[in-house]
Amino acid sequence: MKPLKYAIAGGAVGSFIGPIHRMAVRLDRLADLVAGSFSRDAEKNAASGAELGLDPARVYGDWKELIATEHGRIDFLTICTTNESHYAIAKAALEAGIDVFCEKPLSLSLKEAEELGAIARRKRRMLGIPFTYTGYPMVKLARDLVKNGELGTIDKVVMEYQQGSFRKKGAGGRPWKMDPKIAGPSCVVSDIGVHAFAMIEYVTGLEVRELLADLSTYGNDNGLDDDASILMRLSKGAKAALVTSKVATGEENGVRLRVYGRKASLFWDQEDPNYLHVKYPDAPERIWKRKASYIGEASAAALRASRFPAGHHEGFVEALANIYDEFVAAVRTRRAGDFPGARAGIRSMRFVEAALKSSKARSQWTAL
Amino acid sequence: MKPLKYAIAGGAVGSFIGPIHRMAVRLDRLADLVAGSFSRDAEKNAASGAELGLDPARVYGDWKELIATEHGRIDFLTICTTNESHYAIAKAALEAGIDVFCEKPLSLSLKEAEELGAIARRKRRMLGIPFTYTGYPMVKLARDLVKNGELGTIDKVVMEYQQGSFRKKGAGGRPWKMDPKIAGPSCVVSDIGVHAFAMIEYVTGLEVRELLADLSTYGNDNGLDDDASILMRLSKGAKAALVTSKVATGEENGVRLRVYGRKASLFWDQEDPNYLHVKYPDAPERIWKRKASYIGEASAAALRASRFPAGHHEGFVEALANIYDEFVAAVRTRRAGDFPGARAGIRSMRFVEAALKSSKARSQWTAL
Amino acid sequence: MKPLKYAIAGGAVGSFIGPIHRMAVRLDRLADLVAGSFSRDAEKNAASGAELGLDPARVYGDWKELIATEHGRIDFLTICTTNESHYAIAKAALEAGIDVFCEKPLSLSLKEAEELGAIARRKRRMLGIPFTYTGYPMVKLARDLVKNGELGTIDKVVMEYQQGSFRKKGAGGRPWKMDPKIAGPSCVVSDIGVHAFAMIEYVTGLEVRELLADLSTYGNDNGLDDDASILMRLSKGAKAALVTSKVATGEENGVRLRVYGRKASLFWDQEDPNYLHVKYPDAPERIWKRKASYIGEASAAALRASRFPAGHHEGFVEALANIYDEFVAAVRTRRAGDFPGARAGIRSMRFVEAALKSSKARSQWTAL
Amino acid sequence: MKPLKYAIAGGAVGSFIGPIHRMAVRLDRLADLVAGSFSRDAEKNAASGAELGLDPARVYGDWKELIATEHGRIDFLTICTTNESHYAIAKAALEAGIDVFCEKPLSLSLKEAEELGAIARRKRRMLGIPFTYTGYPMVKLARDLVKNGELGTIDKVVMEYQQGSFRKKGAGGRPWKMDPKIAGPSCVVSDIGVHAFAMIEYVTGLEVRELLADLSTYGNDNGLDDDASILMRLSKGAKAALVTSKVATGEENGVRLRVYGRKASLFWDQEDPNYLHVKYPDAPERIWKRKASYIGEASAAALRASRFPAGHHEGFVEALANIYDEFVAAVRTRRAGDFPGARAGIRSMRFVEAALKSSKARSQWTAL
Repeated sequence: MKPLKYAIAGGAVGSFIGPIHRMAVRLDRLADLVAGSFSRDAEKNAASGAELGLDPARVYGDWKELIATEHGRIDFLTICTTNESHYAIAKAALEAGIDVFCEKPLSLSLKEAEELGAIARRKRRMLGIPFTYTGYPMVKLARDLVKNGELGTIDKVVMEYQQGSFRKKGAGGRPWKMDPKIAGPSCVVSDIGVHAFAMIEYVTGLEVRELLADLSTYGNDNGLDDDASILMRLSKGAKAALVTSKVATGEENGVRLRVYGRKASLFWDQEDPNYLHVKYPDAPERIWKRKASYIGEASAAALRASRFPAGHHEGFVEALANIYDEFVAAVRTRRAGDFPGARAGIRSMRFVEAALKSSKARSQWTAL
Repeated sequence: MKPLKYAIAGGAVGSFIGPIHRMAVRLDRLADLVAGSFSRDAEKNAASGAELGLDPARVYGDWKELIATEHGRIDFLTICTTNESHYAIAKAALEAGIDVFCEKPLSLSLKEAEELGAIARRKRRMLGIPFTYTGYPMVKLARDLVKNGELGTIDKVVMEYQQGSFRKKGAGGRPWKMDPKIAGPSCVVSDIGVHAFAMIEYVTGLEVRELLADLSTYGNDNGLDDDASILMRLSKGAKAALVTSKVATGEENGVRLRVYGRKASLFWDQEDPNYLHVKYPDAPERIWKRKASYIGEASAAALRASRFPAGHHEGFVEALANIYDEFVAAVRTRRAGDFPGARAGIRSMRFVEAALKSSKARSQWTAL
Repeated sequence: MKPLKYAIAGGAVGSFIGPIHRMAVRLDRLADLVAGSFSRDAEKNAASGAELGLDPARVYGDWKELIATEHGRIDFLTICTTNESHYAIAKAALEAGIDVFCEKPLSLSLKEAEELGAIARRKRRMLGIPFTYTGYPMVKLARDLVKNGELGTIDKVVMEYQQGSFRKKGAGGRPWKMDPKIAGPSCVVSDIGVHAFAMIEYVTGLEVRELLADLSTYGNDNGLDDDASILMRLSKGAKAALVTSKVATGEENGVRLRVYGRKASLFWDQEDPNYLHVKYPDAPERIWKRKASYIGEASAAALRASRFPAGHHEGFVEALANIYDEFVAAVRTRRAGDFPGARAGIRSMRFVEAALKSSKARSQWTAL
Repeated sequence: MKPLKYAIAGGAVGSFIGPIHRMAVRLDRLADLVAGSFSRDAEKNAASGAELGLDPARVYGDWKELIATEHGRIDFLTICTTNESHYAIAKAALEAGIDVFCEKPLSLSLKEAEELGAIARRKRRMLGIPFTYTGYPMVKLARDLVKNGELGTIDKVVMEYQQGSFRKKGAGGRPWKMDPKIAGPSCVVSDIGVHAFAMIEYVTGLEVRELLADLSTYGNDNGLDDDASILMRLSKGAKAALVTSKVATGEENGVRLRVYGRKASLFWDQEDPNYLHVKYPDAPERIWKRKASYIGEASAAALRASRFPAGHHEGFVEALANIYDEFVAAVRTRRAGDFPGARAGIRSMRFVEAALKSSKARSQWTAL
């Protein structure tokens, strides 16, 4: 199939997230990058365009200009800017009829997220969000095992998303995540807590109904949360507990999910992502392996999301590519796919606001 | 050294916990079993005495008789009965001047635990409690690494104690743990939550000051808690999150402790107990191994608590034996040792009562 | 930088190895695919070209035609055909002045491999071979730790490359690997044993001088080896033991390397590729993590070969991309790089022939 | 049941192996220690007797005296002396009608081992040998899974027994293992290689028929082997590869067993001994857990050899106790049991001699 054409806002060469998006899109050659507005810094912007082989005429100093000029010429826009501009760019792009793939958090407030959802619906545009961990094949398998009843009724979810980045040398390198003007009213909850939240709802198929939160600020002079413990009550009587942190010293990207059902439980560790552990009360534990011969029967989605044979490891870039695959297929067919969209983005902001509200109210149970 | 003499209340042959105590005491030949009151069932009682090679005259149908007859002839009494009789037996034994080693929970209420503590103090008797996980060498190493400042200021503890026993076939086999008349007002919190609580305070050297709890009853018809999520605030600004369950399907004895300090964090898994993982923000993770050549420098206690060379695994029985070692040394010397005693027992009941109270009050923060 | 242009021989859409090469080349956008001769099956060939978006005029039914037409228009040729044609295609391409990236084994015989090496040298063409496991960042770190003396003098290497593919349902799907006319005189040794051999020499910097081998045929009707145990003597008094198999039931791609030096040892497992374990006699084991902050100091190559932060896993495609990165840099600069080339290809054939010879001679020690 | 009475030759207080034997015997209170000849050093001997609470009259300066005086008063003799005296003590004890439990290696030569076997047979005495790893419940499960056909026909065994003890500080502490006068003609093969050999035959139920060996001496001035690679051919067409070392720097007690059958394979790691991994070609890997509810159906022996519930770890002392359990039952009943005896001891010496012979003959295949 002919690759689509896309543009990027933000994500200059040398940034953390920009190169990942470009690699993910290239992996399956879903789309060719044809335009961009990479940085407010004119030099960096031009250099990024050059490095990426773009026509200089399509490298814009301003995302407004990009949208004004490129709408109709690009199939979608990827937004990799810092948080505070997600809403405005996504809104403008959607209004201009451009499908949007926007980094999380979708916005700085629930209200903005809801507005984006409404615009996308009204303009019939796709809105994709890289809750990347839902793109891992073994997470899709987890979801399908739950859906197929392998675990029975779900009682409890225990989830960790632990990073120690704020304890590293040079942690000041990404100070914007600590700055409420750019990052928004939350740090750890809106930066990585939302990933955890999205995974819980994705894997269990349940909805978080209320939560209580205890946010802390251990290593951030700006006062934004950098550690959180959150208890949740989900639909159908299930519960969840989440710990998430930026000051979990020595942790790299500790996304660990445990789902306990009445018949079995599952465990997935993002730092060992090609395996899914399923434990039974009265039978040996099973380790499912990515793209093993038996995967397809349990989860067509997990099989489809795999590229290389079991034993040949896939990782982060493939997970993001899987989300792009579904997003691009949706852009092509105008039909929903298995990728996080407006609903997940809105719910995640609902989660952030409830967590902030609960924590301020001495950890009262708070409805989402 | 000549072994002491001891008696057991409860713990008939065929019970879960009795044989473990006897093996632990035998391992280092700390004491010889000379008397017992193993079961209210006369036949079972006699059979246990016979099997254990006791003089039938010293096998008692009633613990009161045992205490009345044996005080002065035994060095200590181990109490392995069901929860509801711990208090009465321990009280009688202490009052009779017998040192007591009593299974957890120490009592059914905080008030009773405090009373036992007071009696022990007044009678100058030792009161030991098998918070067995604090007996593992690598847990002692963890405590000493924290004490020596290897982790820096502690910010957060994340702890799991997850069992799936209530989801197993034949879970009804130990129904008394589900019965409030025997087990007391709590199931999971007082049965295993207290182990977790004791470990947190033991390893960090901090005190839990307040907590909020969300207890659940998923698999217990009697209404006692079988799943709990508990957030805690500790002295010196640290926090902790604990999940503990009896319905964590497929878990065997999932005691997992993570302590995050500003300089390093540590991880210990009771199901892989001979290793302690220490993670740094900017250096390779380190795995400390039990009784390796370098252990003693970091923790004399960890070294002393080890028997076999690294690579020759020790487990549960050695951990309990380590607690007995310290308890018996205290009985011999009348000096405190590195074993959980009245204070830990009282604090653990404080924890249980606070958890029950908080959970009933919609998870309000509750002082210990 | 502007991507190069390249062509592929073999590797039709739907094949195992073709898509991996294309993804690896795309990941860093090293080169654009502009031509190919994908299959002897005309329909499949055309379909592959179409699927890959090639100009139909540049999709050739025959690799000879491809070379004849494309030389001067492409920067390099990737050869993904079955073993028996590697030599002829590589020879023709090199003679035509095309840089070649050729799947292993480089040829069916040592003589052919040496001839290819000679031609490459004479024509000053690059010859790259995907001994992919040497492309993993943690393997580069392993090599550099050895080089820097962290392990001291190397005494012993213990290596496994265990697959169970011939025991899987549908193992007949790739019967050509079992067919001596296509696969050559060896199956397991030339298909995966050569990877292990290449890793041993790459990581230790030592040369295998002699070996003894015991090859077996457990699951292959054609009589080619599908299991092998090989002992080796290396330069500087080191030794190595290798087991490799296609009938190691249940193994996926079990590449496990242990290198024992006098001061330390290392362990790397391809199925957990983002970590390198280093063990000391009298200090805690260390786990190095890919792209952690401390990696660069120990190994600039390991850092350069990493894309995403520690905790965001990389896998097989990145490893192959790393080899392509170095190969393409060499093509651009005409200077040797850190990728396996003619020398590694020739030595690996020397290894295959010595193993076959030794095994036939009742496992006599045989010089390479 | 009333404990038996036993004596020990060697194994003074403070030695490595003596205390382990005593703990193992105590764990299940199989026997009471009543006599001993612990050391040629009179002071050490007396001190050991005192520490162990023995009647000084039954603490002998010489094992001959012990045997002469104690035969008829003890049920068995445990021999924990250094290798060179095993044969003479065992011979004298058996001739005196005493059942013997003797540390490995059974003797310094095959001839001696065969003689001991003949005497035991003639005198109808039990001869037990602590090939301790065969006492682990999960090793018994492994054996029974093989026996029950779960793995199908066995093709290959890959085994490691890697220690780094000779690279540790203070490795000179046990120099006798390096001294041919005390240790015998081999070091690593006869000290730990025999454990590996015994496990291979125990688990597979097959017999090693011939082997080739390449022994090395890397760290031992006395010239005894401290590293070995050994290939084996077993009955029924199976093969095995073994690496074993005392200079595997950083390894503690790395006993790792992989058995590959046509239907499944298994993996057991002595450093994680409560689990057995079984891998299938086309189904998820299974992890069996010690004393889980489903163990008994697959292996009555594995269940019987377990004390504590799954999740409460057992280790080295329980494994040795399991061997003693079976040995003591045999002593009581005069019937063979599931413990390594004369046959295993003789075969292991056959293995040692074949390995030495092969290695001297440039690794020729050598019959056992």
